[in-house]
Amino acid sequence: MLDLDSIRSAHDRIRPYIHRTPVLTSARLDAASGASLFFKCENFQKVGAFKARGATNAVFALDEETAKRGVATHSSGNHAAALARAAKLRGITAHIVMPSNSSKVKVRAVEGYGGRIVFCEPNQQAREEACARVLAETGATLIHPFENEHVMAGQGTIAVELLEDVPDLDIVLCPVGGGGVLSGTAVAAKTLRPAIKVIAAEPAGADDAAQSFREHRLVTQQQKNTIADGLRTDLGAPNFAVIQRYVDDVVTVTDESIIAAMRAIWETMKVIVESSGAVPYAAILEGKVDCGSKRVGIILTGGNVDLDALPWLKF
Amino acid sequence: MLDLDSIRSAHDRIRPYIHRTPVLTSARLDAASGASLFFKCENFQKVGAFKARGATNAVFALDEETAKRGVATHSSGNHAAALARAAKLRGITAHIVMPSNSSKVKVRAVEGYGGRIVFCEPNQQAREEACARVLAETGATLIHPFENEHVMAGQGTIAVELLEDVPDLDIVLCPVGGGGVLSGTAVAAKTLRPAIKVIAAEPAGADDAAQSFREHRLVTQQQKNTIADGLRTDLGAPNFAVIQRYVDDVVTVTDESIIAAMRAIWETMKVIVESSGAVPYAAILEGKVDCGSKRVGIILTGGNVDLDALPWLKF
Repeated sequence: MLDLDSIRSAHDRIRPYIHRTPVLTSARLDAASGASLFFKCENFQKVGAFKARGATNAVFALDEETAKRGVATHSSGNHAAALARAAKLRGITAHIVMPSNSSKVKVRAVEGYGGRIVFCEPNQQAREEACARVLAETGATLIHPFENEHVMAGQGTIAVELLEDVPDLDIVLCPVGGGGVLSGTAVAAKTLRPAIKVIAAEPAGADDAAQSFREHRLVTQQQKNTIADGLRTDLGAPNFAVIQRYVDDVVTVTDESIIAAMRAIWETMKVIVESSGAVPYAAILEGKVDCGSKRVGIILTGGNVDLDALPWLKF
Repeated sequence: MLDLDSIRSAHDRIRPYIHRTPVLTSARLDAASGASLFFKCENFQKVGAFKARGATNAVFALDEETAKRGVATHSSGNHAAALARAAKLRGITAHIVMPSNSSKVKVRAVEGYGGRIVFCEPNQQAREEACARVLAETGATLIHPFENEHVMAGQGTIAVELLEDVPDLDIVLCPVGGGGVLSGTAVAAKTLRPAIKVIAAEPAGADDAAQSFREHRLVTQQQKNTIADGLRTDLGAPNFAVIQRYVDDVVTVTDESIIAAMRAIWETMKVIVESSGAVPYAAILEGKVDCGSKRVGIILTGGNVDLDALPWLKF
């Protein structure tokens, strides 16, 4: 069960393997927003994204017998690198199913952590089939990138640290894709500080979570159209259940605002955040969050960016 | 006199106005170098560079009567913005002499802090003349970017914080241009920890400090040819005196290494460092520092970069 206890257990389990990331502030961004903003820098986390927390918790929570058979996933992004790294730390095999057109950067990241890559055709069906085959052949355990309670509990440790460093937050802002970090954040933040508002931010071109939240049913979406590649996934069912109970609002932002937010964070704070991680600040830029003179925690979820293809440069 | 006492006084004086910047580490850069690297992130400092420390100390060290007449400088870079900000904090005027071809970013930074800009022809003589005129007309105090003991003492507070956070460093690496941060660093580090090695890194195309250090006399250099624009200044005389006494070595690096170091820090650590600030890590990449399995502090001096003109992108 995902609760503060399971999040605290996750924290104890993963502490030796993750960074306690700093919380940065910027007088200039405060002045621009009128609020006091506290940026939790998960872009400085191991593998460059918060995904290290959930994957490490899931891998180290396995019993010895199960762990020996390895772990698997069919994510190709930050979760894949995080799972490969966690498996390496435990001395077991991670099987990573990746579409054959994955970027070299992503392939290298997984290889760098010793993950065993299984390439497949670049469509959802092929990925799921390849993953099922790997599970059947190896007996490995599937570690889903967000529909997994240990993963959610691991991601929830971000909010625990943030509230330890800044206990009197009024709002915490978090991006939503599959809903892993949002569900962990919401449970941790609302349990530790019931008065806090938990607000999710989502690209308008991938707004299934906002629709689901509004319609009180899990909406899926065939076409996703956003620069925020980490948020192109549909919301998970277990994640939606948590979000319905604990999240106060889901707001959407345009890609234009996401790029502006990303650039503002780079330029003003000197930290590299990927487009998906800039989505919460984009919501502030768009005035979608009533942050008045409030104290707002913002999770900068990751910093893995192709430095040869920055979105504000036209080629 | 520049000593640990004056550096500690500077620290007490500027503490309310500056960030205590974090020290970040990277398992990947450690593995690549074989050493344990501790990056002191002055790129997260106010105005985006360590210059906030020295300028703030110099402005707040002025007595009331002198302060009222304002301050002035003919630097156009990070020191100009830092001085404008410090003057604003004290409620006095900063006159900033800038060449008429200064980049808009630099002009905006100074204007943003309320500095009074005096434009002049883009050559050294015109800058000095314009500055002398401002001083004569206003009675303002010149705050030189590095040939000033309060400025040096302010920059020395970086090493105090670094050694508080990581007391058992073997080496501290620092870039050298005019020598302000290097002299402050050297005095603080050697006094707090006499066994430490203080090593300066300089672009090969602006190696007057390395030449001066080798020849035991202050060498000037007409032509500077390096991407590291913050290090194109000649070493100051008072700075050289300190450096001769306290610094163990001055090594040089190519612009190619500087760009590679800058990119490696961006990609691996997700922090934005400007080319001048990447020079120490470039020295490690080039194998110019015998860092074996030692504990090495590296000052990332600044993060002010034109995001439309990254050096690894060809246009």
